[in-house]
Parts: sequence; structure tokens; C-alpha cells
Amino acid sequence: MNKTVSTSLNGVDIDTVMGLAGKIQQEPDVAKTRWNARVEWKGGFRSEAKVRDFDAMLSDEPAALGGSDTGPNPVEQILAAFGNCLAVGYAANATAAGIELRGLSIELEGDLDLHTFLGLAPGNAGYDRISVKVDIDSDASDEEIGALHKKVTETSPVGHTLGRAIPLDIKLA
Amino acid sequence: MNKTVSTSLNGVDIDTVMGLAGKIQQEPDVAKTRWNARVEWKGGFRSEAKVRDFDAMLSDEPAALGGSDTGPNPVEQILAAFGNCLAVGYAANATAAGIELRGLSIELEGDLDLHTFLGLAPGNAGYDRISVKVDIDSDASDEEIGALHKKVTETSPVGHTLGRAIPLDIKLA
Repeated sequence: MNKTVSTSLNGVDIDTVMGLAGKIQQEPDVAKTRWNARVEWKGGFRSEAKVRDFDAMLSDEPAALGGSDTGPNPVEQILAAFGNCLAVGYAANATAAGIELRGLSIELEGDLDLHTFLGLAPGNAGYDRISVKVDIDSDASDEEIGALHKKVTETSPVGHTLGRAIPLDIKLA
Repeated sequence: MNKTVSTSLNGVDIDTVMGLAGKIQQEPDVAKTRWNARVEWKGGFRSEAKVRDFDAMLSDEPAALGGSDTGPNPVEQILAAFGNCLAVGYAANATAAGIELRGLSIELEGDLDLHTFLGLAPGNAGYDRISVKVDIDSDASDEEIGALHKKVTETSPVGHTLGRAIPLDIKLA
């Protein structure tokens, strides 16, 4: 029995991604996905978030905010998730376009005013803005990288979640 | 030398939180905070997000989406961060209101359609909605818990970040 071993560009299993896209074109409902997380409070400002069977994501606040500083805080985790999402977007779309990536690093920064969280003023308790710098190491042309960047920023699930007003339904059990 | 040891309600260092709020009322600029994360792509759909000196947050995608499933994916991390943020909100506001919490668990769920991420249709690549169920174990009255819940959901930094359209600036380095 012969077995074909394909070494994929950028380590991305693009056949699976393309196969999923093809399946969704046949059966649009396959595109409907549901995701979950469960958080347990651990006292003070510490909590643990579980996703499937992975190690819990520990959360805390810095001492200046009254925490015990044992992990990143939730607004830092939002930046981390956004960067991770953009990384998937660049890897997927570069591979689909035949662009080899040697490296990719992403720096994220967000500004947040504490007045509303602390109950001192109405207004926006969240980020006022988020800035991202993307450093791509590749031999692709500036034009190719520019087109890749445009596609990724226009189709990022976390980018759209942050850049739009998402309906939130928060209920007591 | 006498030393007063105060055991704080819910393990929350409410004196620091109140002290910070008082300082901000004197010097409003103290409320302006900036947060950062840095993400490194690790090949395929794997990446690592670093926040300060904490352990990296590993990210990947499930096999069905072409990943190697070594960690939660970015949209799951968003739910995790939101639950962690709500936990801080309940702990802080319960303590300020003199409510003792015995336990707090939060379940989060989000629906996301893959058409836009996969380039099959324009539209929203992010969550269409996020639902949260909060289970509070406390002897406080329903009225007290209701008021706590209202305050937390109205002042959540991650809740506001998701529930509003945040300006995003994503640049190539």
C-alpha cells in the first residue's frame, strides 16, 4: 500500500480548511458553530476558565487594582485572544495564497479608562481603542503581503467580535 | 507594636479598590490604563500569547478546522476572558455591598457562522450573540443579588468591549 505524505506550506492543513469550505457550500448549516467556556471564581479577583479539556486559563488582577497578580487579567486576555485569532488568519490566508511565512509576531495595545468599572462615572468601561502591529517575515512582495493583510483584517472572527456591537444576554441561573 | 489584621470579605482587597477610586477622584488621569499582549505564531494554527511575565497562553484550532487541537481557540478564549471579567465584577461589587459569596460559576456560549472567516460570504465573521448564565451561591436576598447583577453587567470592561464597536487599528510593522 502506498501512502502519499504531503508536507504542507506553513504547517497549515489547508486541505481540511478547503474541504470544510467546500462542504459548507453544499450544506450551509455546517458553518453554524457554537463555542463554550466555564468560569469558576476562586476567591478575591482570581478565577479559572475552562475550555473543553484544556488546562484552565488562570485570571487575576494586578496588586494596584486589588488583585493578587497570579495571572493576566481579563482585558489582557482579550488582547491575547485577538492576536491569536489574527495569527490563524495570516497562516490560513497566506497558505491559501501560496505565501510562505518564515515568522509572524503581533503586538497589541489597548487603552481603558477605569472610571466606569469603578462606578465613578457612566460611559464605556471597556477599551476605547485597540492598536495592533503585525510583523511578517516573508519573501512575498509588498503587494502580496498588503493583500494578505487586507483579507485577514476583513475576516477576523475576534476582530469582528470586538469591532461590532455583539448582543449579550447575561442571566442569573 | 500592634498590628491590625483584617480578614477581608470574599478574599477581596476592597481597601485597595476603594483607595484607587478615591485617588482617581482627585487625579482623573490615574484612571487611564494601557494594556499589552504579544503573540508569536508557532506554525500551523498554533500561536502563543504572552502577557507580562506570565506563562504563554497557547492557542490552536480543532482538527475539524484544520488545526492540531493543542489548546483553546481564539473565540473560546474570548468567552473565557468575558467570564473571568464578570467574576472580578461580582467579587468587587459584592464585597463593596457587604454581600458574602460562597461560590460563583459562570457558563458562556457563543454562536458564530464560519462563512465570512472562510471567505464564502461577506458579513459578520465574529459572534452573532453571546449568552451567559451566572450561578451565585450566597445568602443575600434576591433583591440584593439582582442589584449586584445589574451593577456588574452595566460596568464590565470586557462586556463593554464586546457589546460596543471598538475602534481597531491594525497595521503592518
